[in-house]
Amino acid sequence: MKLIRFGAERHEKPGILLDNGDRLDVSGFGTDFNEDFFGGNGLAELQKWLESNKEQCPLVDRKERLGPPLVRPSKIVCVGLNYAKHAAESGMEIPKEPVLFFKATSAIVGPNDDLILPKGSQKTDWEVELAFVIGKKACYVHEASAMDHVAGYLLHNDYSEREYQLEREGQWVKGKSCDTFAPLGPFMATADEIRDPHNLKLWLKLNGEIMQDSNTSDFVFGIPKLVSYISQFMTLLPGDIVSTGTPFGVGLGLNPPKYLKHGDIVELGIEGLGSSKQNIKAMH
Amino acid sequence: MKLIRFGAERHEKPGILLDNGDRLDVSGFGTDFNEDFFGGNGLAELQKWLESNKEQCPLVDRKERLGPPLVRPSKIVCVGLNYAKHAAESGMEIPKEPVLFFKATSAIVGPNDDLILPKGSQKTDWEVELAFVIGKKACYVHEASAMDHVAGYLLHNDYSEREYQLEREGQWVKGKSCDTFAPLGPFMATADEIRDPHNLKLWLKLNGEIMQDSNTSDFVFGIPKLVSYISQFMTLLPGDIVSTGTPFGVGLGLNPPKYLKHGDIVELGIEGLGSSKQNIKAMH
Repeated sequence: MKLIRFGAERHEKPGILLDNGDRLDVSGFGTDFNEDFFGGNGLAELQKWLESNKEQCPLVDRKERLGPPLVRPSKIVCVGLNYAKHAAESGMEIPKEPVLFFKATSAIVGPNDDLILPKGSQKTDWEVELAFVIGKKACYVHEASAMDHVAGYLLHNDYSEREYQLEREGQWVKGKSCDTFAPLGPFMATADEIRDPHNLKLWLKLNGEIMQDSNTSDFVFGIPKLVSYISQFMTLLPGDIVSTGTPFGVGLGLNPPKYLKHGDIVELGIEGLGSSKQNIKAMH
Repeated sequence: MKLIRFGAERHEKPGILLDNGDRLDVSGFGTDFNEDFFGGNGLAELQKWLESNKEQCPLVDRKERLGPPLVRPSKIVCVGLNYAKHAAESGMEIPKEPVLFFKATSAIVGPNDDLILPKGSQKTDWEVELAFVIGKKACYVHEASAMDHVAGYLLHNDYSEREYQLEREGQWVKGKSCDTFAPLGPFMATADEIRDPHNLKLWLKLNGEIMQDSNTSDFVFGIPKLVSYISQFMTLLPGDIVSTGTPFGVGLGLNPPKYLKHGDIVELGIEGLGSSKQNIKAMH
């Protein structure tokens, strides 16, 4: 199943993307894709509900805006330097254990919403990432059962302002949390749809030119390790998002570095998880 | 007005603490103390509602558990090294601009709930802090109008696992986000109750012995600066919590350092914002 949310910002309704590209409005099911939905067997119940209600679900216009495919979660946990080649281009060593940081959930937008450059930003950068969604509370989880806690997968562009992240006293969160810095989607694919999350091509283009082109097979730490590891430090709640890091090819790693400016177009995608596109806009 | 929430964990109801110590159940008002409440003029409406409904509000037993005085917010933004003497004891320089980090909102508990030591933790430490609550969305706010965005104040113990924070690859969030690491309250005092948030005594005792004893007049960066500064990097939403940093006297700064163990008792308080008490427990 592919979960979407559609409609105006902050007024999105839940929907389903069918294999033929049709979008169904499933707001009749009665629950949005939130913590209670993921934590309370919502995916199975929605599947069952669709068996008898699918024909009555209104069709959504394909031109309708897509929002983020799930409701704002309690947290977005991001993994740093999780592809060996990206660690190298950032001038950092491959970490011995996962590097974690947070991104403000207020940064979440739909997959094709504009990226708004922060005021005065000179160093806004792109990062295509595979993200996954927690389906079951995770606290001190073992690697062997970690995948039972994953509800599904989605595409994430972990936009980063490198000056704010690296040159402004301390922690990375400052450069990761600006509004519009977390476009999610187009959809969340349920776990059963992705045969092997550790073998997915992912790519990102800037103004049509390929900048990132890699495969999740290059992960330093795989998903079971990440779920287990994070759950030693904090409880992951249903609906929480974990973003697994970005591969080689960000602007920071180029010589000279290259950053985003008004008018640029960023497109990105992951095998099986669709693609998204952001127009880069300066703030008025 | 002093907002409280009472009852069993995850089933708390909103209430009000009166000056005589009585607690009133205000669940009849119809909204819990969440983002919509703070963002939608809830404080003024509750005040008005109380004028005609106070007599009908049920009295809450004083032995009833207190929960955190507001619903889980979108984020907890913490300020690091915001007292000159604490920066010194941590062996760090006074920052030129605020150091920010996040704490997982899943760490929030009531003011007198147990602090559960993470499995194997050897370096769990205390940090008494003044926290404030955002009452109005803050995005690129000027210092001059920053205080209009503050709904109120509360006591926070920013528990920190120093090994996780400082010795485990990278970002501080790992040592700040464990479950039970953010006891909040006893209550949130509305802004009008605190004459000068930049002149409040705060203290913390470990097993009856005073460990931290300072005043918010020692802030490196005051509240208007913090609101304005943070709002340049991310939007603060109504109900979001900002914790303003801790003064001299944490365990890390002692020689030799001193950390928490099963059976310890931590008590803390801030002038005008009450006190809280956590029993330190090892995990079963």
